[in-house]
Amino acid sequence: MHRDRYYTLTASCPDRTGIIARVTGFFAEHRGWILESSFHADDEVGQYFMRIEVKADSLPFALTELRQRFQPVADELRMDWQITDSAVKKRVVMLVSKQEHCLYDLLARWQSKELDIEIPCVISNHDTFKGFVEWHGIPFHQVPVTPDNKPAAYAEVRRLIDAARADTIVLARYMQILPSELCDVYPRRILNIHHSFLPSFAGAKPYHQAYQRGVKLIGATCHYVTTELDQGPIIEQDVIRIDHSDSPDDMIRYGKDIEKTVLARGLRYHLEDRVLVHGNKTIVFR
Amino acid sequence: MHRDRYYTLTASCPDRTGIIARVTGFFAEHRGWILESSFHADDEVGQYFMRIEVKADSLPFALTELRQRFQPVADELRMDWQITDSAVKKRVVMLVSKQEHCLYDLLARWQSKELDIEIPCVISNHDTFKGFVEWHGIPFHQVPVTPDNKPAAYAEVRRLIDAARADTIVLARYMQILPSELCDVYPRRILNIHHSFLPSFAGAKPYHQAYQRGVKLIGATCHYVTTELDQGPIIEQDVIRIDHSDSPDDMIRYGKDIEKTVLARGLRYHLEDRVLVHGNKTIVFR
Amino acid sequence: MHRDRYYTLTASCPDRTGIIARVTGFFAEHRGWILESSFHADDEVGQYFMRIEVKADSLPFALTELRQRFQPVADELRMDWQITDSAVKKRVVMLVSKQEHCLYDLLARWQSKELDIEIPCVISNHDTFKGFVEWHGIPFHQVPVTPDNKPAAYAEVRRLIDAARADTIVLARYMQILPSELCDVYPRRILNIHHSFLPSFAGAKPYHQAYQRGVKLIGATCHYVTTELDQGPIIEQDVIRIDHSDSPDDMIRYGKDIEKTVLARGLRYHLEDRVLVHGNKTIVFR
Amino acid sequence: MHRDRYYTLTASCPDRTGIIARVTGFFAEHRGWILESSFHADDEVGQYFMRIEVKADSLPFALTELRQRFQPVADELRMDWQITDSAVKKRVVMLVSKQEHCLYDLLARWQSKELDIEIPCVISNHDTFKGFVEWHGIPFHQVPVTPDNKPAAYAEVRRLIDAARADTIVLARYMQILPSELCDVYPRRILNIHHSFLPSFAGAKPYHQAYQRGVKLIGATCHYVTTELDQGPIIEQDVIRIDHSDSPDDMIRYGKDIEKTVLARGLRYHLEDRVLVHGNKTIVFR
Repeated sequence: MHRDRYYTLTASCPDRTGIIARVTGFFAEHRGWILESSFHADDEVGQYFMRIEVKADSLPFALTELRQRFQPVADELRMDWQITDSAVKKRVVMLVSKQEHCLYDLLARWQSKELDIEIPCVISNHDTFKGFVEWHGIPFHQVPVTPDNKPAAYAEVRRLIDAARADTIVLARYMQILPSELCDVYPRRILNIHHSFLPSFAGAKPYHQAYQRGVKLIGATCHYVTTELDQGPIIEQDVIRIDHSDSPDDMIRYGKDIEKTVLARGLRYHLEDRVLVHGNKTIVFR
Repeated sequence: MHRDRYYTLTASCPDRTGIIARVTGFFAEHRGWILESSFHADDEVGQYFMRIEVKADSLPFALTELRQRFQPVADELRMDWQITDSAVKKRVVMLVSKQEHCLYDLLARWQSKELDIEIPCVISNHDTFKGFVEWHGIPFHQVPVTPDNKPAAYAEVRRLIDAARADTIVLARYMQILPSELCDVYPRRILNIHHSFLPSFAGAKPYHQAYQRGVKLIGATCHYVTTELDQGPIIEQDVIRIDHSDSPDDMIRYGKDIEKTVLARGLRYHLEDRVLVHGNKTIVFR
Repeated sequence: MHRDRYYTLTASCPDRTGIIARVTGFFAEHRGWILESSFHADDEVGQYFMRIEVKADSLPFALTELRQRFQPVADELRMDWQITDSAVKKRVVMLVSKQEHCLYDLLARWQSKELDIEIPCVISNHDTFKGFVEWHGIPFHQVPVTPDNKPAAYAEVRRLIDAARADTIVLARYMQILPSELCDVYPRRILNIHHSFLPSFAGAKPYHQAYQRGVKLIGATCHYVTTELDQGPIIEQDVIRIDHSDSPDDMIRYGKDIEKTVLARGLRYHLEDRVLVHGNKTIVFR
Repeated sequence: MHRDRYYTLTASCPDRTGIIARVTGFFAEHRGWILESSFHADDEVGQYFMRIEVKADSLPFALTELRQRFQPVADELRMDWQITDSAVKKRVVMLVSKQEHCLYDLLARWQSKELDIEIPCVISNHDTFKGFVEWHGIPFHQVPVTPDNKPAAYAEVRRLIDAARADTIVLARYMQILPSELCDVYPRRILNIHHSFLPSFAGAKPYHQAYQRGVKLIGATCHYVTTELDQGPIIEQDVIRIDHSDSPDDMIRYGKDIEKTVLARGLRYHLEDRVLVHGNKTIVFR
């Protein structure tokens, strides 16, 4: 995390010799000051991944020109790439239900600027946190979801997300399964927190599943949402120890602490452009 | 955690044969249903410790009579003991400063009744969280502390704590050192969260100390406050991995996640009468 | 872990009032010195579980008489129970293959008496560790297993286990699936270490499965062997963090450290009679 | 960990623009295939650190010529640098005492080629593991150390280390404090495992210190030995949870599992040239 403004290049390309030299040579030529750089070769698929932070004011031109000048390098290396600007705050829409832990946690981080983002709105199927969210000066939209109104409800959710010009959508224990159409509209932009150590206990009531199986650790998984439930690329996971004396209710309580921490970490990686996706797996340049 | 009302006996006494039999025999005689029981012998000091939860409505008498009837057993075993009632909510006063993470975390747990307590007031030397606390319907008292007004300021803090009839005082990153007099008034009732893995890095700026020493894990410690700074009995600790790329600011950010979790766990153990103190050490019956 | 000789009672019975009082009352009556005691009520199934260590020389009679005198108490409470003697070393047969880590680890613990057991023999389908095991003064039996000779091979394995009068059989990365008949002969006496965090990645090549799924932690599970592959009651689990740069070979290497530690912990709990099984779950009184 | 032969460049130099471009440009020019690369800028001290693995047979010249050709680049950047060859096994001398866990653990890793090193000899002040070490085909030297013979004993230890042409010396729970002269002779080449989470509990009997302080986690630290006892640069650390029921003996037992794992990880980082030292801190490129 840097205080000064910086640009972040993330890119992947077919592996070959000279990739780092070509890309960092481009920046060196313009006296760009590299703050942080990470590289990864996936030998199995022959693909190369990178993330480079460059100090904005070390370059003699602005972002638009940087992108134009970098284009030939990217073409030469057949790159899938993007450059983001730390001065442009990401816009994050949160979807919540009646559970407080992830919402309080994320708003605390936002309030203290640990998460330096815009939250254009919070959407919920319940009004439980309307007052709390609005007290923070954030618009709150209740969109009730019932077995009968799903198409209309999710059309409204989509309309709100689009109106908010959201870069990222966070399911902060939303407790509803998004329809496939919605998942497809925002690929790699919807983050979910699942309350188990996936792939164990996908689907409903994972803590009860964990209790029945008698596992000795429970976990949480932050992943990108895809059309296959709980099957998207995993960004972050963690676990906590339990024992035979813990009931499903105890697990739910312990689990909350893991869920909010794992979601916050995964979201931070995502917002700082530290997560690259290849197939169903992530490269996370921490 | 049980839904039904229960009484909790915590006790310590010199070790001998027959202690468990005597105490559980007393409850069995009255058909008391034991929900949970924990025992520990400290061989080094020859002291015995126990914690027993009994279902309130399994006993044929109320709490006052229970205490009267138990007194002879306690006398016989030369016990230091208490019995608490799950129906009587503990009263917890929080002292905060300008850091949000522990306060948001504890109020989230209180809001959802995960922490089933009364919060008669929050006290702070700053007004940063006045609105936030009051929005939750909790009185907020600002008591500024300056190098010049300490005696008066802490007299006021004490007055507020006493007026609140607080069972427990939580220093939720209060950032001020309580005067000895105040520590002595509430023995084993003031909990602090220190942002290091004690005994490493006691005192000021522990993350900067950790950075200078180059440790590979940082931690947090929840402990009872005594007159010796950061030397009180430790209730709970945890750590998180860092590496050479993490600045003191990164550590502060990572540390917050550990601090709030460790404080919440330590506070829960305390509130559920799971913490017994002997000398400068705790027995924690989780 | 106590230095003095002690007896360990483990028992389960239908839950009711007065169980602890009845059992500890029995010991108190004979001035038995209880070193450690643990109790657990499983509310869901209405079953009560306990483990009590009593100093052997505090009782005025020997183990045989203790068992006789305790029988009426057990009958009254409809207990499933046993009492073991710390002076009688457990007899543990190990089955290994070509992987060294669990074998070296367990023999190191045995050599230093951390594991105070008899190892009547080690059985393997390969001769890789013949010299190593025999150097420790432990008989080594090679029983090659091929697709064609399985019935004969496992008959021989059974003969060796029976000849060794083994209390416990440890599959220390044996890499072969025991036939159902053999599993049934030694219920709750065969421990396996599976190289994943079960129930994720049961079956073959779990690290390759983990690599394909892109999980961020890998684990190991110590469990009792039942006729259903990798489905037996879980005794102990742990995990370790990995990231995108770790190949399946790296995971195998990291995993070894978890596997041997989890197996050693699970085995210790088993040998100290700390593991009670109910249905497909364990109570582990650590 | 790569199967193919590779060269590893580790370097540090004053920070400026164009460092990565200059170094990777050099390799690109000769069509060197970079397998892995890591970079770190320490803003506080203005120093830059890097580690690059290059496939040996991708370069058109051998190691000697590589070093000659790289020299001008290094001079230009004012680098402190070295290039090692994965085909040249490091020579590791181990010093042990009467504790088995680290020795068994390291020899198991060596036996399976997880640690692909030469062990020219093991040195001990006791003969406890003479047979065990020699059974592995490794020379064993007993050098008893008494209060009276220290200068002579450590002169002999030094003679044996030098005769072994050791790159690295591992104090695998050696339990003796090396004299300053010896520490100075092998800077950043002697690794120790200390049985506490440093800086807590430096010096003697750390588990007893931890027991007295009542900490809730115990740890181990792998560090380079310097003339100041337990103050050298920390390479790796880890912790394990304990509770009030654990005696110092239990802690010693739990601690062994952490000690051997932390030592093995730290040693691996060191042997793979992943550890750079600056001042009293390490950069560990995992």
